[in-house]
Amino acid sequence: MNQVGHGLSQTLPTRELLPVGRTNNPIPILIFAVAALALRAGDLAEGSKQDTSWHIPSRPLTAPAGASDVLREMIMGMSAPDVAAIRGRVPRDAAQWKALVASRDADMAANAAALAGALEVSVERDSIDGVVVRRVTPDNVDPKHEDRVFLHLHGGAYVLNGGDAGKVEAVVIAHRTRIRVISIDYRMPPDDPFPAAVDDVVTVYRRLLRGRAATSIAMGGTSAGGGLTLAATHKLIELGLDVPGALFAGSPWADLTKTGDTHFINEGIDHVLGTYNGVLEAAARLYAGERDLKDPLISPVYGDFRGFPPMYLVTGTRDLFLSDTARTHRKLRTAGVVAELNVYEGMSHGDYLFVLEAPESHEVFGELSAFLLRHLR
Amino acid sequence: MNQVGHGLSQTLPTRELLPVGRTNNPIPILIFAVAALALRAGDLAEGSKQDTSWHIPSRPLTAPAGASDVLREMIMGMSAPDVAAIRGRVPRDAAQWKALVASRDADMAANAAALAGALEVSVERDSIDGVVVRRVTPDNVDPKHEDRVFLHLHGGAYVLNGGDAGKVEAVVIAHRTRIRVISIDYRMPPDDPFPAAVDDVVTVYRRLLRGRAATSIAMGGTSAGGGLTLAATHKLIELGLDVPGALFAGSPWADLTKTGDTHFINEGIDHVLGTYNGVLEAAARLYAGERDLKDPLISPVYGDFRGFPPMYLVTGTRDLFLSDTARTHRKLRTAGVVAELNVYEGMSHGDYLFVLEAPESHEVFGELSAFLLRHLR
Repeated sequence: MNQVGHGLSQTLPTRELLPVGRTNNPIPILIFAVAALALRAGDLAEGSKQDTSWHIPSRPLTAPAGASDVLREMIMGMSAPDVAAIRGRVPRDAAQWKALVASRDADMAANAAALAGALEVSVERDSIDGVVVRRVTPDNVDPKHEDRVFLHLHGGAYVLNGGDAGKVEAVVIAHRTRIRVISIDYRMPPDDPFPAAVDDVVTVYRRLLRGRAATSIAMGGTSAGGGLTLAATHKLIELGLDVPGALFAGSPWADLTKTGDTHFINEGIDHVLGTYNGVLEAAARLYAGERDLKDPLISPVYGDFRGFPPMYLVTGTRDLFLSDTARTHRKLRTAGVVAELNVYEGMSHGDYLFVLEAPESHEVFGELSAFLLRHLR
Repeated sequence: MNQVGHGLSQTLPTRELLPVGRTNNPIPILIFAVAALALRAGDLAEGSKQDTSWHIPSRPLTAPAGASDVLREMIMGMSAPDVAAIRGRVPRDAAQWKALVASRDADMAANAAALAGALEVSVERDSIDGVVVRRVTPDNVDPKHEDRVFLHLHGGAYVLNGGDAGKVEAVVIAHRTRIRVISIDYRMPPDDPFPAAVDDVVTVYRRLLRGRAATSIAMGGTSAGGGLTLAATHKLIELGLDVPGALFAGSPWADLTKTGDTHFINEGIDHVLGTYNGVLEAAARLYAGERDLKDPLISPVYGDFRGFPPMYLVTGTRDLFLSDTARTHRKLRTAGVVAELNVYEGMSHGDYLFVLEAPESHEVFGELSAFLLRHLR
């Protein structure tokens, strides 16, 4: 066991070694003491500091027994994501991107309309100071939400779900939380890369502020919509505007680089995204253009979260963006922000939108509903 | 894409298929609409319902770039856990268990004493109604905590860390949250399997209640200590006793079966535990004796969480017990309990105890401290 303390005392920078309130104490003993606590399985390698990747062996993965029947049976009905195939499917130029987008969005738009009908939600196209939006209104608005609005930002890796295709989540939110939703059809690449999307959100938000208190506005979305919610809030603070009363970030794309631990751990496990390397990586670069991917308005996890309003966050154990969500939550908490993190057993990226009838999906939106009632004014 | 809707409508039980507020709507269309939302990577297998495990290919795993320098450098200094070796190291009888425990606990006890000295915390052995405890007292008790106490339950898979070896976490909690700690040296197998541990906690708790309000008592621990915190609270409610004012569960062993999704996903990735199959599995059976492992007093995640007090939970992206922690959090939330889940980037099981000088460890106990100040009376 002495090796443990010895090895660590060589690798750790001394400035970090002192526990609170002490200036001279026996560091190796401290670390030694605690390292022995566990059924420790790893062994310290000799000559510690080289950047050695671990080799994780192949393994079988069963459907998550602790998930709901509905979610588990959906997963049992699918084959594992084929990471190699996803990596191969990358558009090479603007025309190929547009073809991909068109092939995805047409079906989506038609089915979003069917969903709106089934859920008794009306949808009107409108524009606010030049930005195209959908006004998504449930038949039975909650009287408490009479004077409130939910500003929805759709997902789709900053390339998909423009136009009517983007309103599916808006319809679900309107239906389940009984609030009026304005879903922004923000501009996207290849024609309009960053900062067009952020600018469009700010334009609509500014206009809303003329007629109402910021605390009566919620903002949120899933995936790129969650990331854009975070980025736009950074921008609102930079501009000195009042922030919304509450935010929702579902599995937010908070870091457009392949940094998060679960980008590696859940590669080939998340059945929705599969891997970063492929369409996601290409979309990140398309969106950022010449900008640094770590610009806080592009990868908002790198920003300063002081002054953020209360935020409700959702992810799952199989989510490629579990780390994005958890890292954002940590930064919010250390900045003193009210932030609620929820991790669902067996859920991949955004599954609560793909299996609407699963208990997990009802939990997600039931708690979003309670969160909005608690924090909006 | 029609295959998606079609495949799902075959696998899902119809009772779950209806969104709130509707009795007749076009189910396949609904699911179709939302399944198309994502960059969906998995494909629906033909003849869905067979229990097909996925084959997850081997992959490299780098040290988590988003973790602190201290945590990342510790991980870089270790080799990956050797799952096969861990599986081989299982005690076969009581004598072998006692030999394993003795070899681990002796070092721990000595080093716990050094830690207490370094952190200016005094430790006295005592007994309360026949149960052995350690009274762990910081030199500078927070005046707000003057009349409060933290009941600590140590970890160690219900076999390790008896006696002085169990007090490391108690010392850290006393030091960092400036509250008086009573750490229970609860009885353990092979001599005393379940329900001895739960009974010992109840005995001490009952005695504390005679001199103080329940709301002035916190209870908690890590790993088996977190699981025992949950199980004992189930028992307190069953007995009709007032529950503590606040609970802490660090990476709780809330399910002693191999059910959690991350038992599979993080096998060979969690550098502290490595795998369930080995000492953990054997310890679970040793502890439960003839009882069902899913008894809620043994695997508390299967219990009813109504009436639980506010709970602070901690886990990490590499934690074998991430699912145990997240599933517990979900059950608490759906039972209407105040519960705060925190997931740390790159952390394996209980790393905040093993790398005390890491910023992550300071965050964990800093927030525990704030949580206690917020909820104890």
